[in-house]
Amino acid sequence: MTDTLPEADSLARVVLHSEVQQFYARHMQLLDAGRADEWALTFTEDGVFAPEHRPEPVTGRAALTAAVAGAHAALVEQGEVRRHWHGMLDVTQNDDGTVAVRCYALIVGTPLGGETRVVMSCVCEDLLVREDGELKVKHRRVTKDGVAAPV
Amino acid sequence: MTDTLPEADSLARVVLHSEVQQFYARHMQLLDAGRADEWALTFTEDGVFAPEHRPEPVTGRAALTAAVAGAHAALVEQGEVRRHWHGMLDVTQNDDGTVAVRCYALIVGTPLGGETRVVMSCVCEDLLVREDGELKVKHRRVTKDGVAAPV
Amino acid sequence: MTDTLPEADSLARVVLHSEVQQFYARHMQLLDAGRADEWALTFTEDGVFAPEHRPEPVTGRAALTAAVAGAHAALVEQGEVRRHWHGMLDVTQNDDGTVAVRCYALIVGTPLGGETRVVMSCVCEDLLVREDGELKVKHRRVTKDGVAAPV
Repeated sequence: MTDTLPEADSLARVVLHSEVQQFYARHMQLLDAGRADEWALTFTEDGVFAPEHRPEPVTGRAALTAAVAGAHAALVEQGEVRRHWHGMLDVTQNDDGTVAVRCYALIVGTPLGGETRVVMSCVCEDLLVREDGELKVKHRRVTKDGVAAPV
Repeated sequence: MTDTLPEADSLARVVLHSEVQQFYARHMQLLDAGRADEWALTFTEDGVFAPEHRPEPVTGRAALTAAVAGAHAALVEQGEVRRHWHGMLDVTQNDDGTVAVRCYALIVGTPLGGETRVVMSCVCEDLLVREDGELKVKHRRVTKDGVAAPV
Repeated sequence: MTDTLPEADSLARVVLHSEVQQFYARHMQLLDAGRADEWALTFTEDGVFAPEHRPEPVTGRAALTAAVAGAHAALVEQGEVRRHWHGMLDVTQNDDGTVAVRCYALIVGTPLGGETRVVMSCVCEDLLVREDGELKVKHRRVTKDGVAAPV
């Protein structure tokens, strides 16, 4: 038991860490539900989603919405549910007010009537910014495990 | 670095978020250890566990205890260990003091001398209430991936 | 909305819980990147890593560094990437200032050009201590699922 409040600096870090966790929870639940418009609003207007294993990054909310709507429709067609998990969040508050996160991502898939399996393991590096008090993804780099040789 | 304390409202949210995470950690460790009585105490006396893929919900601590004790005995008989992970917690404090959580659940299983696999992926929707200061599950709805066609 | 600050005691618990999560994120990212020296510095000088399924514990930073450097080199040789996830953290602040954590660990592996799979599920029991303000692992006991019969 203690009567001493933690330092303001510690508390600011904890608030940010919790906020990032809650942001990702909502962000991923929107993605997996195929709520493409709402998901795109968790990026900045010019937000970039850059998977290293794809030829081109997806840039801007319209393109992000279209990409997710298309991918979700294809999964529904196949009868497959996907769940994106983010974990092991290393959160850094930058001096310019932006937030850097490096974390792991696990994508779990289940076909209708079938077995659940791990579809993919990735590293996700996000640059988050604040707009009207809310966190948004400005840039996301995703590196899929198994694509490049480990070093 | 900052000298300014975060707002009381932010801090209250963070305390709740952390508390829910710790609650689930203990709750799931009790479940996986087969400590059925202690696990049932993390529900309210009239707590409901409603998996959509089962014909009936399990209602009340006595029934919850019996269900978990039976399931655990069957797993021990098979030599199988299960681990329940909750993640991507979207936590909402309701105006009436109850707490709504929508999160993902992953169940991982390992047979004696065998390979670990993902047994099940679910969405878990909990209504938590506070009794004598402690969080308890009043109602849990679990939707197992792969049972219904995705939409 | 609230104007009342949470109690100092609640805030201290939340700060610790968040700090442990961030500690593990950095700790595991160092491990999986094969940054053996930096990883060993997240243990105390005499830190012990005791997997129940190995004949001997690994003791002290030099031995910890060597063990991880060797394991990482072998994985690179095989073209395999591993990701260590810690979850379901049950964090206890002990009266002597040390911190006990019991949590689940999931190790996910992906071979070059191959499929991701769950390699291992474990229970991890850590004793953390503070040195110059930073958390360090003093003792880690790891129990691998599937080795002993469940009880």
